[in-house]
Amino acid sequence: MKTWETYIRKVVPYVPGEQPQGEHIIKLNTNENPYPPAPGVQKALREMNPEQFRKYPDPSAGLLVKALADHFQVSEKNIFVGVGSDDVLGMAFLTFFNSGKPILFPDITYSFYPVWADLFGIPYETPELDGTFSIRHEDYKRDSGGIVLANPNAPTGMYLPLGQVEDIVRWNQDVVVIVDEAYVDFGGQSAVRLTENYENLLVVQTFSKSRSMAGMRIGYGIGSEKLIKALMDVKYSYNSYTLNYPSIVLGAEAVKDDIYFRETVDKIVRTREQAKERFAQMGFSCTDSQTNFLFITHERVPAKDIFRILKQEKIYVRYFAVPKLDNYLRVSIGTDEEMEELYRILEKRLPQMG
Amino acid sequence: MKTWETYIRKVVPYVPGEQPQGEHIIKLNTNENPYPPAPGVQKALREMNPEQFRKYPDPSAGLLVKALADHFQVSEKNIFVGVGSDDVLGMAFLTFFNSGKPILFPDITYSFYPVWADLFGIPYETPELDGTFSIRHEDYKRDSGGIVLANPNAPTGMYLPLGQVEDIVRWNQDVVVIVDEAYVDFGGQSAVRLTENYENLLVVQTFSKSRSMAGMRIGYGIGSEKLIKALMDVKYSYNSYTLNYPSIVLGAEAVKDDIYFRETVDKIVRTREQAKERFAQMGFSCTDSQTNFLFITHERVPAKDIFRILKQEKIYVRYFAVPKLDNYLRVSIGTDEEMEELYRILEKRLPQMG
Repeated sequence: MKTWETYIRKVVPYVPGEQPQGEHIIKLNTNENPYPPAPGVQKALREMNPEQFRKYPDPSAGLLVKALADHFQVSEKNIFVGVGSDDVLGMAFLTFFNSGKPILFPDITYSFYPVWADLFGIPYETPELDGTFSIRHEDYKRDSGGIVLANPNAPTGMYLPLGQVEDIVRWNQDVVVIVDEAYVDFGGQSAVRLTENYENLLVVQTFSKSRSMAGMRIGYGIGSEKLIKALMDVKYSYNSYTLNYPSIVLGAEAVKDDIYFRETVDKIVRTREQAKERFAQMGFSCTDSQTNFLFITHERVPAKDIFRILKQEKIYVRYFAVPKLDNYLRVSIGTDEEMEELYRILEKRLPQMG
Repeated sequence: MKTWETYIRKVVPYVPGEQPQGEHIIKLNTNENPYPPAPGVQKALREMNPEQFRKYPDPSAGLLVKALADHFQVSEKNIFVGVGSDDVLGMAFLTFFNSGKPILFPDITYSFYPVWADLFGIPYETPELDGTFSIRHEDYKRDSGGIVLANPNAPTGMYLPLGQVEDIVRWNQDVVVIVDEAYVDFGGQSAVRLTENYENLLVVQTFSKSRSMAGMRIGYGIGSEKLIKALMDVKYSYNSYTLNYPSIVLGAEAVKDDIYFRETVDKIVRTREQAKERFAQMGFSCTDSQTNFLFITHERVPAKDIFRILKQEKIYVRYFAVPKLDNYLRVSIGTDEEMEELYRILEKRLPQMG
């Protein structure tokens, strides 16, 4: 090993989920939205002038920030935007968790939290979920360097009632509390309104799920002016221009079309509730997911085998080969047609298995 | 001050350059390309299918990486892409400069280098340029935590001959040497070929200048497989999906159109060389810039006054209110028409000033 290699930052490389290419596949493994972006997005794309690309984008992403401020009825100073919610969350870890005390997040949650903590040298502790995969909110009422909660949680889909979230935020006013609401539009009640009363609370959401824009990489955080200012200062110390011109213009259009947004979310929620019933009929049990995915386990057939069989049939779901999760599958909610095909395959193959 | 505020990462907020809006302005302050992106980019934009936005982009940005690998005749494993060269450079600081020893970069150079060093707690020392604003390459042949050189340098425009760059890289094989070539297409000779012989060398370039794509935010680094792998590991520990779908698709098209690229660069170089003469005739002296900007000072009239007068005329150039630079202006090379208008204004106003 050369000397320069010994100075490389030590990380455990994160491996992103499989992005299978090709025709006739059903992709239910990365919680994407099965429906296209809003009509306004499509129109703005057709009208986009490529001459604009030669100029730097607005570093404040003003058009997008204003659309979000109007939508959430907050000030533009309460909003921070980034390259997907991962960028917002990573930047928040870097900005706020510098006390040297361990931060807290559940042992089963979004797998990036420990990765960011390791990257930036932030100590952490991971209280266990209870036997029903629920967060025990009392575990987060103790001295720490900060709190990170996904609500609804992933990959469990479980939602922590807003009153308990507020209880955690109220108890932890000396540190920053991040509530990662990537999936909140599919069921849960958002903590955005709590940011008016707790200036240590950052609520993070994304365009990747409910707004059908995973490919555009847009995420945002909502919080007090002080907290957003701190994030902006760190962002401007890393990369002044993060969101590109198409993200700013098309992102703003996606926010403005609230009717399409609600219709799409409602369709996915209906399909999810039907899926809960269909899976139950086939011998699966699943958590009471409030997201755009289900977290399922079969009474007889190991999850790993089901995962393998589905892949043969070109249906991709997510399998986690880690303790506690290795007999579960995370299945994104697709269109009704995609889900029917999934049920058809399972009904055919499951009886022959296990 | 609340307790949580005491844990915020300390940074000196970087203020990005002015992005004036409105009609009839001449914008020569951020070194953008005055010509539109390649015809292939415009065609691909018109043909883009917004349905693609609902899916996550390829985390490896394969299409773009392949286009760059073909263009530079290197392997795809030698290329790292990011959200502008700022993202690539910032990620490289985070990845490679962990020895605790001070890194070295010139006292006058891209103003983001000390900002990244401060953000990540990297100590640094800044050897002075010589009296002609040139890098003294002997200053970089000493024990350090790493080296960062912009070549050509900014805002001076001065180019360090490739032999001296190689001398620095050869001397410093125990640390990573970053050569930031944002402006190299306008004159200098690139260090890309040196990456075949020195695995500690990272060469960084951008789509923002010579490829007319500042608004798309695309930058890249070229280096040994080991070095790129280290960057990728850190990148995947921060944000798996950084480049969005339009950046990947349109970026690849920009690289493929080499004829348009060369024509555009040649036009800018011709305009720059004419500008050197015109400025000299008006009493300016300027460095021998090999970039798409000139760094000029007037024999009689203070730079600050010229800056102010030009702004009144809706012509924006860059003024740096810092020691050593505060009697200079950085003027981006615009179209011939824009430059003629600039000369016309200066020829009218300069005689009345000072």
